[in-house]
Amino acid sequence: MNTVELIRKKRDGDKLSKEEIKFLISAFTRNKIPQYQFSAFLMAVYFKGMSVEETSYLTEAMLNSGKIADLSSIKESKIDKHSTGGVGDKTSLIIAPVAAAAGIKVPMISGRGLGHTGGTLDKLESIPGFKTSLTLGKYKTNIKKCGAVLIGQTKDIAPADKLIYSLRDVTATVESIPLITASIMSKKLAEGIDGLVLDIKTGNGAFMKDQKDSETLALSLIKTANDFDKKVIAFITDMNQPLGNYIGNWLEVFESIKALQGDYPKDLMELSITLSGAMIFLGGKAESLEEGKEISFKLIKNGKALEKFLEIVKLQGGDLKFVKHPEKYPKPKETEKIIAEESGYLNEINTFELGVAAAELGAGRKTLNDKIDPKAGIIFKFKLGEKVKKGTVIAELYSESQSKIKNAKKRFQNILKYSGEQVNAPQLIKKVIQ
Amino acid sequence: MNTVELIRKKRDGDKLSKEEIKFLISAFTRNKIPQYQFSAFLMAVYFKGMSVEETSYLTEAMLNSGKIADLSSIKESKIDKHSTGGVGDKTSLIIAPVAAAAGIKVPMISGRGLGHTGGTLDKLESIPGFKTSLTLGKYKTNIKKCGAVLIGQTKDIAPADKLIYSLRDVTATVESIPLITASIMSKKLAEGIDGLVLDIKTGNGAFMKDQKDSETLALSLIKTANDFDKKVIAFITDMNQPLGNYIGNWLEVFESIKALQGDYPKDLMELSITLSGAMIFLGGKAESLEEGKEISFKLIKNGKALEKFLEIVKLQGGDLKFVKHPEKYPKPKETEKIIAEESGYLNEINTFELGVAAAELGAGRKTLNDKIDPKAGIIFKFKLGEKVKKGTVIAELYSESQSKIKNAKKRFQNILKYSGEQVNAPQLIKKVIQ
Repeated sequence: MNTVELIRKKRDGDKLSKEEIKFLISAFTRNKIPQYQFSAFLMAVYFKGMSVEETSYLTEAMLNSGKIADLSSIKESKIDKHSTGGVGDKTSLIIAPVAAAAGIKVPMISGRGLGHTGGTLDKLESIPGFKTSLTLGKYKTNIKKCGAVLIGQTKDIAPADKLIYSLRDVTATVESIPLITASIMSKKLAEGIDGLVLDIKTGNGAFMKDQKDSETLALSLIKTANDFDKKVIAFITDMNQPLGNYIGNWLEVFESIKALQGDYPKDLMELSITLSGAMIFLGGKAESLEEGKEISFKLIKNGKALEKFLEIVKLQGGDLKFVKHPEKYPKPKETEKIIAEESGYLNEINTFELGVAAAELGAGRKTLNDKIDPKAGIIFKFKLGEKVKKGTVIAELYSESQSKIKNAKKRFQNILKYSGEQVNAPQLIKKVIQ
Repeated sequence: MNTVELIRKKRDGDKLSKEEIKFLISAFTRNKIPQYQFSAFLMAVYFKGMSVEETSYLTEAMLNSGKIADLSSIKESKIDKHSTGGVGDKTSLIIAPVAAAAGIKVPMISGRGLGHTGGTLDKLESIPGFKTSLTLGKYKTNIKKCGAVLIGQTKDIAPADKLIYSLRDVTATVESIPLITASIMSKKLAEGIDGLVLDIKTGNGAFMKDQKDSETLALSLIKTANDFDKKVIAFITDMNQPLGNYIGNWLEVFESIKALQGDYPKDLMELSITLSGAMIFLGGKAESLEEGKEISFKLIKNGKALEKFLEIVKLQGGDLKFVKHPEKYPKPKETEKIIAEESGYLNEINTFELGVAAAELGAGRKTLNDKIDPKAGIIFKFKLGEKVKKGTVIAELYSESQSKIKNAKKRFQNILKYSGEQVNAPQLIKKVIQ
């Protein structure tokens, strides 16, 4: 096949066949198509999009570029959750043990934090000893043993996605629904799942600011999941403020442990039991989403989910000492309080900037090679719509360096907006799409 | 500057500044921007276009990537012609000597044939000894001496264009008005010209099939030329049939010599004196385009143009024996006649296919590394609208190999269409834009 002709075909808005897409992905992955042709193709896809069929072909080609975990010997339903990423989103840490405690198998392959968002792997690795790079064999064993495993992407899984993503990142072709869909789905399908719960964020701290875009992505993901005969539910959820109050790696593990102990912020618990409820429902352990949520809440209340969490951590080599006694965790060198300079109702949080500030303190990275400080982060004490009094501590910053604290503090000048009049808090779960 | 940000800016339809475009071209030319980023940028330009200002900035940046011939010591007007290329278009060989004979200085840097179109350099090189690769020094000397020089692009001239063009060629980003404009104008401006006559072809043998596209390109070229204070006239001309009757390198030189001797097909002469007339007018040696045409025709009739042609050939090392006695030129090994299989008015010529057939016989090349056979080609004996009788010889094929003749002959099955009723010949010069 002629690569230029295929680029031209997509450029002119024509649909590519399964064979053509397979050729492009397979040849690119084997270095038979140069990057400069593939990036032109990606830009053509950015402008011309892809049909549902093309997106499925792309997903399949990317999936088949690597290994697919064979979990067929596990009889129970294997359900995962994927989130498009946000600030303070630690639901994975809560829902994996909840769903596993409900009898669902949770094969969870997660990513690392980049830019303003955190990553589940970084959070888990803040627990000393916790290993996120397991072989696919160990991955399977752990699922069988305790019902859940949380690992990072192995080299075997959808290598085409890694290659394509790094090219998209430097060619301004990230923001494309079919490319995002295939990237997410190829990795998720490689996990060996039967079903998937999607948490598509929308708002100023989300990858997609506009709810319509989030819904478009959700529909594209659902259609592709259906094409592969996977059960799926998508939630469009608010990311106009951090989820929970803690932002940063250990800070989020800490908040998750507290939540599993029954001490939780309302929004974090609402979203967590919704997502795990959906997993339980999709996995056939509940008759409805509502029942799934009830089961989830019960498993938190009776301590079974926390028990499961300890089991997962232990099985992946994590030191239980800190999980059981979080107060023993090393303290950050520097702390600083952010004080409210006016009184009013909290009307707007620039969540993107808040995430960047947390990253700047050491909780995140600009490039995938940067090191992370597990202790760094922000405790953000208010929610949108709440009344703040001048002089109150709104947030606490944690870091190893005064200069980082200074920089992050400077950012706070543009992060918060108050209103003299009472304002409504945004709805957390904006839409359910099945 | 951040390359990804600049790609994104163009992708989102924003205008790039002069500095931003300068950075992109300069960095790419110095290998500081990888090809994969530049090709994504090119595809974004394909979709989002460029403003007149951006196109001028791009032209300037590409022009400044190399040397600009300094012809300021030559007092006379320096006028060149550029054609977008077609089949059988040998006007350069006629108009350069005509304009030079009229006292215009003609600094002509031409290209080679590729695909279905021929190239002036290949045609000239069919004259034994004719040298087209001169230094810029020799280029200037020749212009001073005899008024015209016809050479190939040197390495010094707009090297950015060469790099960008080869990338466009393999990334389906050739068909972009601003990219075409900057490619043409950067090279033409480097010649050191005062004015430019544009022959923008339209029709089934042209690069642009649609007249509207040709006009858009003409306007873009005119605006850019104006931005650089160059005089300019553009003609939109028909390319739904070959120009003249001869297609192939020596065959076209032969037809040009005959034309300069006063034996010419009507269309070739009409276009030639129009273009040279425009050059003479732009160069201030005629009061009007019409007067320029009259001067041109007179210079052909009185033999001065032929004299100038011999002078140019001699000065560039060409063997005058064949120019003076074309019958002495080596004959092709194989010839074949194409016979009309039905009677009717010639209604359609697939000029693209005709050009490909000529290339296949040895007159052209698929890639720039292919060798050319100067003797190969086609004599096509009819014009659109003319009556053809079944059994008449429509065309003669010339080649070194029977198998090439066979392949080209096969193509003829789809090249011609006849009509039972009389049909109108297309208008040759469709529009003049100043």
